[in-house]
Amino acid sequence: MTHGWTRTALILFAASLAMWLAPAQAGDDTPLDGYSAADSKTQREWEGKFRDLPDAQILRSSMERLSARPHHVGTAYDKDNAEWLLSRFQSWGWDAHLETFDVLYPTPKRRVVEMTAPTRFTAKLEEPDVAVDPTSSQKKEQLPTYNVYSVDGDVTAPLVYVNYGSAEDYEELDRLGISVKGAIVIARYGRTWRGIKPKLAGEHGAVGCLIYSDPRDDGYFVDNVFPNGPMRPPDGAQRGSVEDFPSSFPGDPLYFDRGDPSAPHYTAANAPGITKIPVLPISYGDAQPLFAALGGPMAPTDWRGVLPIPYHVGPGPAQVHLVVQSDWGLKTLYDVIARIQGASEPDEWIVRGNHHDAWVNGAEDPISGQVALLEEARAMGELVKQGWRPKRTIIYCAWDGEEPGLLGSTAWGEAHGKELQQHAVAYINSDSNARGYLFFSGSHVLEHFLNGVARDVEDPETKQSVGERRRLSLIGTAHSAAERAELRSHPDVRLQALGSGSDYTVFIDRLGVASLNLGFGGETQGGIYHSIYDDFYWYTHFADTDFAYGRALSQTVGTAVMRLADADLLPFDFGGLADAVRTYTKECEDLLKKEQEDTRERNQELREGVFRATNDPRHPVLLPKEQAPVPYINFAPLDNAVDALARAAEHYRRAMARAGAGSLFRSPEALRPINAALRQSEQHLLEAAGLPHRPWYRHMIYAPGLYTGYGVKTLPGVREGIEQRQWQEAESEITRLGNLLAADAAYIDSITKQLEQSAGGQ
Amino acid sequence: MTHGWTRTALILFAASLAMWLAPAQAGDDTPLDGYSAADSKTQREWEGKFRDLPDAQILRSSMERLSARPHHVGTAYDKDNAEWLLSRFQSWGWDAHLETFDVLYPTPKRRVVEMTAPTRFTAKLEEPDVAVDPTSSQKKEQLPTYNVYSVDGDVTAPLVYVNYGSAEDYEELDRLGISVKGAIVIARYGRTWRGIKPKLAGEHGAVGCLIYSDPRDDGYFVDNVFPNGPMRPPDGAQRGSVEDFPSSFPGDPLYFDRGDPSAPHYTAANAPGITKIPVLPISYGDAQPLFAALGGPMAPTDWRGVLPIPYHVGPGPAQVHLVVQSDWGLKTLYDVIARIQGASEPDEWIVRGNHHDAWVNGAEDPISGQVALLEEARAMGELVKQGWRPKRTIIYCAWDGEEPGLLGSTAWGEAHGKELQQHAVAYINSDSNARGYLFFSGSHVLEHFLNGVARDVEDPETKQSVGERRRLSLIGTAHSAAERAELRSHPDVRLQALGSGSDYTVFIDRLGVASLNLGFGGETQGGIYHSIYDDFYWYTHFADTDFAYGRALSQTVGTAVMRLADADLLPFDFGGLADAVRTYTKECEDLLKKEQEDTRERNQELREGVFRATNDPRHPVLLPKEQAPVPYINFAPLDNAVDALARAAEHYRRAMARAGAGSLFRSPEALRPINAALRQSEQHLLEAAGLPHRPWYRHMIYAPGLYTGYGVKTLPGVREGIEQRQWQEAESEITRLGNLLAADAAYIDSITKQLEQSAGGQ
Repeated sequence: MTHGWTRTALILFAASLAMWLAPAQAGDDTPLDGYSAADSKTQREWEGKFRDLPDAQILRSSMERLSARPHHVGTAYDKDNAEWLLSRFQSWGWDAHLETFDVLYPTPKRRVVEMTAPTRFTAKLEEPDVAVDPTSSQKKEQLPTYNVYSVDGDVTAPLVYVNYGSAEDYEELDRLGISVKGAIVIARYGRTWRGIKPKLAGEHGAVGCLIYSDPRDDGYFVDNVFPNGPMRPPDGAQRGSVEDFPSSFPGDPLYFDRGDPSAPHYTAANAPGITKIPVLPISYGDAQPLFAALGGPMAPTDWRGVLPIPYHVGPGPAQVHLVVQSDWGLKTLYDVIARIQGASEPDEWIVRGNHHDAWVNGAEDPISGQVALLEEARAMGELVKQGWRPKRTIIYCAWDGEEPGLLGSTAWGEAHGKELQQHAVAYINSDSNARGYLFFSGSHVLEHFLNGVARDVEDPETKQSVGERRRLSLIGTAHSAAERAELRSHPDVRLQALGSGSDYTVFIDRLGVASLNLGFGGETQGGIYHSIYDDFYWYTHFADTDFAYGRALSQTVGTAVMRLADADLLPFDFGGLADAVRTYTKECEDLLKKEQEDTRERNQELREGVFRATNDPRHPVLLPKEQAPVPYINFAPLDNAVDALARAAEHYRRAMARAGAGSLFRSPEALRPINAALRQSEQHLLEAAGLPHRPWYRHMIYAPGLYTGYGVKTLPGVREGIEQRQWQEAESEITRLGNLLAADAAYIDSITKQLEQSAGGQ
Repeated sequence: MTHGWTRTALILFAASLAMWLAPAQAGDDTPLDGYSAADSKTQREWEGKFRDLPDAQILRSSMERLSARPHHVGTAYDKDNAEWLLSRFQSWGWDAHLETFDVLYPTPKRRVVEMTAPTRFTAKLEEPDVAVDPTSSQKKEQLPTYNVYSVDGDVTAPLVYVNYGSAEDYEELDRLGISVKGAIVIARYGRTWRGIKPKLAGEHGAVGCLIYSDPRDDGYFVDNVFPNGPMRPPDGAQRGSVEDFPSSFPGDPLYFDRGDPSAPHYTAANAPGITKIPVLPISYGDAQPLFAALGGPMAPTDWRGVLPIPYHVGPGPAQVHLVVQSDWGLKTLYDVIARIQGASEPDEWIVRGNHHDAWVNGAEDPISGQVALLEEARAMGELVKQGWRPKRTIIYCAWDGEEPGLLGSTAWGEAHGKELQQHAVAYINSDSNARGYLFFSGSHVLEHFLNGVARDVEDPETKQSVGERRRLSLIGTAHSAAERAELRSHPDVRLQALGSGSDYTVFIDRLGVASLNLGFGGETQGGIYHSIYDDFYWYTHFADTDFAYGRALSQTVGTAVMRLADADLLPFDFGGLADAVRTYTKECEDLLKKEQEDTRERNQELREGVFRATNDPRHPVLLPKEQAPVPYINFAPLDNAVDALARAAEHYRRAMARAGAGSLFRSPEALRPINAALRQSEQHLLEAAGLPHRPWYRHMIYAPGLYTGYGVKTLPGVREGIEQRQWQEAESEITRLGNLLAADAAYIDSITKQLEQSAGGQ
């Protein structure tokens, strides 16, 4: 029944709704997917014991300890934290060690932002301490506000406001007849990942870039500012990496791939991840005088924030002098790696990670997630003492160097790439955690599995399951009746696809290890991201103050880890993958259609004279250019492959349901090759040559967007081909993807056959 | 051919597009609707001469004269302006006189807004003069900032922010668990008409009301503030009427109808138009300290403006003391009425008006429109000297007392109601005028006529016709492909329906005189509305600075007046009316459907627990209540009547086209009864008993919204019945409207028959 829901969903829906409304009862005896009835019962008992163990007081004291001092890469406290984490794992019986990597990590020596005309103003570039907040005064250890991997520079130029600094924003500037050539741009944080801002500015000829936090986005517009509330105060600024990883590679900018000695190796002078122009983040306190001195046309309406001034675009008359000079030394990373050896399948690994480095004290980012991971590890240590013996090996990782560019996880993933591709079943990541709803994203082969986990964890506020709460919240925020109908007809919550921005990147995008990223949020607002105010005082006053959701994260991830570690047959399901790929294909087809219609409409309006008729001569804009019609593209290879994938997924589901009914689950030898094939299935979504123009990224279904950064692009070769109007590339990517998915369907069919033969042979 | 376009539009469209792209050529010999070929040629020559006459320099100097001093009702300069206008008309050969009415017009004696807790703050309630702007310093003559027809009061209470103070905003407050009972509310200007704000606040139990101008809406968010730009400076405030005319009647609050001695007569103490709670407008400079002192939950996201503070809802801790005391005396209105007697049809009147009173100096509102009206009158006087003899009588009106509540036009319209219903062909209104596109709204029998006029007037910026520019701008701002397709398939621009807010109200809503309201705009931003800064300096620096659009308004309205005055057969067309009523019926049906779906969805989400699941316990909101299902309603009587109306309109079109081909147009005697029937056709859309709950409003197709004020509600009985969930009332209004429209269709058929008989008889 478990796998029959797609066909019978409408009939079963009403009857089974009650089942999802509450966490599974202690007496629930529906076997878990991939478990025999007997194993399932035992497993549920161990999981129940596990979920009783995470302790809010311990979460709190761990956070206090780990966020007590600034602990960015290269600091004494970063190393101290790593050693403390190591000792914790060891004290709970884990086999733990540190792995170190030397990486390029520039820190600022000189930072200047000053206006030289029409009036003089020197930006503070300094976050003041706050009396009630004890760690905010640790001035000597705090990393100044800067963007790591900005190139050094000393430039003076007129200022231009570029909104979020996205590709569309530059199109809008073109319409206004404004060029950023030779200018310093000021962009606001948000919308695109911050590294895209200096990248696009540089590509358009700018010589420098400032990035500020508009109070519309995380300041007083949202709520009271710190310390009276959770939001960014006037002098708060957002540090952060601007490494150009989406178009090159994440991790240490000097190494394309640490696991491949033949891969390119760079210096700071030629590393492709370093920005081409200098960039600094500034506060809205520092930004306001610059904006007030801008002339030129008013910014388009949706570019305007909530500073109490009219937002003009420039260029000038504000002239800005920007200096960035860094110390370009190497620093050492300390990854903490801990394991519990699997009892019967030690060569199958469940990998779990969260980073421990921060920009400053980092109570929310990343310690709120790190302390949940620690409580999982403590509880599992406790279960082992009580007699639990996980079938598979469990590996817990506390990563260093995530903030500058996923340095610790990428280095470790690349260094251990071959083993991981052979042994890893899945990688489960978390990062910052807050109050509210369970957000889950990841590989769609794990969608159905994760929904099962989420139905078994209780939400601390509503006492529903965290899965059901999430599902209902999606109904509540759906944009259309069609979307609500979809949600109601589909008991599993759809996984979001993974982009980038945390440590799962190397696992999913490079190695093809099925990955998940989990965290709670949506009921907490904050404007302390990457500032000195992200600390224990802030977190315990404005975030998950009683650590109820830290506990829920431990319970959720820990349950997922244990359930994967102990399953007889790995609970992978290809139906979620097939559904997702079908949806993404439809999106790409719709995107092409929209490009066709938009181009046709724009050309027609040009011919009709709409733009001429609506061009105010006192505020003239340039007319758009007529564009060549958008061609039709052959989607058939992809559509056919999606159908084949869906059929293969359905066959596998039926075989799995039948296998569970027999005695196969009591035969580890028969299951071992099937599990091996399953855990390596995600690798069949990789292409060795990688995505167009960025060979590091090998996953053909998910990638961070070339021009969105963290934001995911699904079917990235096809979708970005269309977005960039590279019609031939889009078409050849459709063919490549179609071939890949057809081969994947055949691979799944081969697993199904293996499963049927083994089940028949028992 | 002229009237055949609906059936053959698709075929003709491509061929005739070129014809609409430019103003009619001098040599254009397509006969004007309702004109014989010969009369059409003569008419086009006179109209061409007319359009050469309006003079930007005269527009400028007239504005300078009329806005030289504050001239609100009751001031010496208001009377002085009226006498000057009178002398102008007379000097151009018009038969002109003043008509006076004594009206209730309270002016403020005492105004206080102060915060008494948690800190003390006294609002300035004062607009400072500006050095560069000479009239801003006429302090002694300026009317203080206030809302006329606020009741007197002296109240102290906690403050609550209610966003725009609309019905939806109070529903949102209910969800937040916040009551305004016993509170003073602060609402922002915009969205609903200002008088709705104290009305709804009072209905919800508030004891006082402040209305402020958020800089998001007309301050620095939009552009630089005065005098550096056109927008509202920090201490600028918007005066304005709060007379509750939508639910009672416009005009002097003491008279239900001046033309009907048996109609109710009130005192200031019992007049239904006076607010129930005291109300004052304030600037954003005065509002900011009040907002900064508000506690309670954060305002919903779309309630927040751009003051540099977090917007909380309250209630309190801010306590506000509000005092309003007025001098409740009577003042005298001076309406200026001027006429040119019709040569052959003196008993058929074309009425044209614009008000002359202002809140202060009022260069934009209303003098920018008044000076255009004056130039029309001067030019027509000139044409008469050259030998032009209009067939029909032309009556030009400069109204007094529009600002407090359409006092001058309503009093005159009611006093002359019977004559107007007998003689008036149409009323054409204008008010403020600015740069940009021609906005036209009015009775749909004039839709096709007005489009013809708009094709013959040149836009001063693009040199297209003002009609074509408007049409293209609508394509450019359309929201969907369907909307664009509609615009492209329909050569006439659709008329917007008339709500209220200017002097056409008594003509259309009470008397059933077909009305139009015309003006240019859309390329000028301003934040000086109803402030001391709406003056000659502002207008000549930031608005239609070269009076090019003042000239275009004269040309447009004057052409319309002349073309109506001289037509053989009045160019009324019922196709536009039938189309409009069909569209409105469909909207009401869709509205009911949406209410049904929304209610069903909300009830389902309540049963599923969506609201419970998404209710943050730290920011709890009240759950909505389950509502009874929305019933189906019988729309058939209305649908049938709409079909009958469309058939009648089509028959009339065909008869008119045939009539134009014959010799009927040379027979005034035969045309006279047909023209009489045509000009009274709009009265067949009135019901003597008026709309539900507001008998003054007799038009069944158009009315100002009971809860939107200026904003129109079409098919108001039906639509507001549905909106207010009065299902039985909606259903009985459908029947009443169906009967009315069926009778109107029969009436149109009788005109058609008359026309066919007369044409046949020639």
